[in-house]
Amino acid sequence: MARNFKAILSYDGSPYSGWQIQPGRTTIQGKLAGVIKNITGEQVLPQGSGRTDTGVHALGQVASFSLESPIPVANLHTALNDKLPESIRVMTLEEVPPEFHARHSSKSKTYLYRIYREAICPPFLADFVSHVSWPLDEAGMIRAASIVTGEHDFTSFTATDPEKTARDNKERFPVNDNVRTIYSSTWERRGEELVYIVRGNGFLHHMVRNLVGTFLLVGKETYSPADVERILAAKNRSQAGPTAAANGLYLVKVEY
Amino acid sequence: MARNFKAILSYDGSPYSGWQIQPGRTTIQGKLAGVIKNITGEQVLPQGSGRTDTGVHALGQVASFSLESPIPVANLHTALNDKLPESIRVMTLEEVPPEFHARHSSKSKTYLYRIYREAICPPFLADFVSHVSWPLDEAGMIRAASIVTGEHDFTSFTATDPEKTARDNKERFPVNDNVRTIYSSTWERRGEELVYIVRGNGFLHHMVRNLVGTFLLVGKETYSPADVERILAAKNRSQAGPTAAANGLYLVKVEY
Repeated sequence: MARNFKAILSYDGSPYSGWQIQPGRTTIQGKLAGVIKNITGEQVLPQGSGRTDTGVHALGQVASFSLESPIPVANLHTALNDKLPESIRVMTLEEVPPEFHARHSSKSKTYLYRIYREAICPPFLADFVSHVSWPLDEAGMIRAASIVTGEHDFTSFTATDPEKTARDNKERFPVNDNVRTIYSSTWERRGEELVYIVRGNGFLHHMVRNLVGTFLLVGKETYSPADVERILAAKNRSQAGPTAAANGLYLVKVEY
Repeated sequence: MARNFKAILSYDGSPYSGWQIQPGRTTIQGKLAGVIKNITGEQVLPQGSGRTDTGVHALGQVASFSLESPIPVANLHTALNDKLPESIRVMTLEEVPPEFHARHSSKSKTYLYRIYREAICPPFLADFVSHVSWPLDEAGMIRAASIVTGEHDFTSFTATDPEKTARDNKERFPVNDNVRTIYSSTWERRGEELVYIVRGNGFLHHMVRNLVGTFLLVGKETYSPADVERILAAKNRSQAGPTAAANGLYLVKVEY
């Protein structure tokens, strides 16, 4: 009988064309499938908790996959890290009940977005933060972030590719339903960085980056915090700010 | 009359074939020269305090160059950072007396070497630390490091390319003289990392990486700390340990 596995992955998204396997592109899902094949001889498609886009990082992406192989879990864990590139690490690996599915079973996700605030961004952080050195009204950004907590229709903050957005979530949310619940949405200072942390029951495509892009316009005082309420109510992508750069975004944790 | 400039540079060495300009290779000196030409129209060869090898990083490399251009120093600083890749940053730029030369005028240098000690190295650090997860006798490594302080002939720890080594230092040290003075040489724990910090009046080619490779063999108990005295006295490269990986090494500071 097949054994089901749950892996928690951390990756530097910079060198990859995102999570999802695509012909002719180097992707995290593709690398993981290739290494599993190499170790066990089995062709499986590891399921992620969701996609991450090109350049987006993960501290705790979750993947699930089933194998016939009797390989002990500790040996498989070691072999995966030996064969994967150093930019993808399997932080933990465990055997889980057959009904566990990284995407269908997820209950909530946490994302983090890092903005470096000093005039000169250290070269070592170039792929890992978004650099915004101009003045920002950080108090206004904190107020704006709090407005999106609770249950809302996030149409104004989703990429205008509804087919793609709906497909990602069809097991948990009705197709074309853009209503999600945000449990917490805050900005905090961490040394030279301003960090956005958001936790919710699900996220639409580009939703975190579109929220950040909008909060940055509040920071620049192009918008007031109250404008965020208006933008949310408009249910119209063209009302919100631009999509913030991918390299500041991290999928932190998936809860089940 | 030409104006002389001193720049302190920080760079991620991962994407470069080292500091020194070479035909057909992407180097830090080459990038800097190209950007200066682009801004001022002047073709100069910025002089570094010394070379860094492929993959070696800098927190405080120093470069000097002379320009005829009347461009204000603050404008030149901004323009350099605007046009350089994000992996190379000019941290400070100042006008200095004409006799200042980044290499000839240097009095001492500090290097740092980062070793990540936990079982799984975070993917975000893969280019920036050397990963050594096996047991190490850290107390023995600290004793071994202290042995190299003072004035010694470091022939056992230099790359076997004497022509190259001597050429780098001919203005300050006699050709083929491998005697250098180490002011401090210590290992310290910084969270999950074991860090070697060494300051001296000059360093031979590969010297820090060869010292680290040897101290790691002390850590593995292949050598005792006392063996380091024997290796130093032998003045023979084949006696010492291997050259440690480039990606853990940082040129921290140059003093004048």
